[in-house]
Amino acid sequence: MKRAGAWLARVSVGLKPDILDPQGKVVRGALGELGFSAVQEVRVGKHFWVRLRGSLSRPAAEREVRRMAARVLINPVIETFTFTLSRAG
Amino acid sequence: MKRAGAWLARVSVGLKPDILDPQGKVVRGALGELGFSAVQEVRVGKHFWVRLRGSLSRPAAEREVRRMAARVLINPVIETFTFTLSRAG
Repeated sequence: MKRAGAWLARVSVGLKPDILDPQGKVVRGALGELGFSAVQEVRVGKHFWVRLRGSLSRPAAEREVRRMAARVLINPVIETFTFTLSRAG
Repeated sequence: MKRAGAWLARVSVGLKPDILDPQGKVVRGALGELGFSAVQEVRVGKHFWVRLRGSLSRPAAEREVRRMAARVLINPVIETFTFTLSRAG
């Protein structure tokens, strides 16, 4: 039997909508100065690509990703996250 | 006629596959110490959510996003990017 490939979780972390994003403001300002006049707003976030052992079931892998996001990857006071989970190629 | 909503570009920036990611290694180490033993690798990247004027055509908006990524958002020596473009709600 072919072994299942590893899980690949892609965790996308961003500031909550009501939290100011000074870094995004700086990027927006730089873009404006360079002539990108169509830009109205920029917000910056982080990305984690996490490879997990393929022997986990999908529900177990999802649980692990949620736990690690809440405990390590995000600051739940100001950030939220979404993620997708797929088998690595 | 209803005005079209703004464009929302979601630019995802990551290190090229052959570039070492010390930040990802640190996160992986922290996860391991906390008992997340199924984690095999972590890579870290950035995200930019960019809102653009809705009066641009889709091709013009895509061109703007590619130009701003190459000139401002990424370091083309070590990073690559992908993006999606959709009408804001």
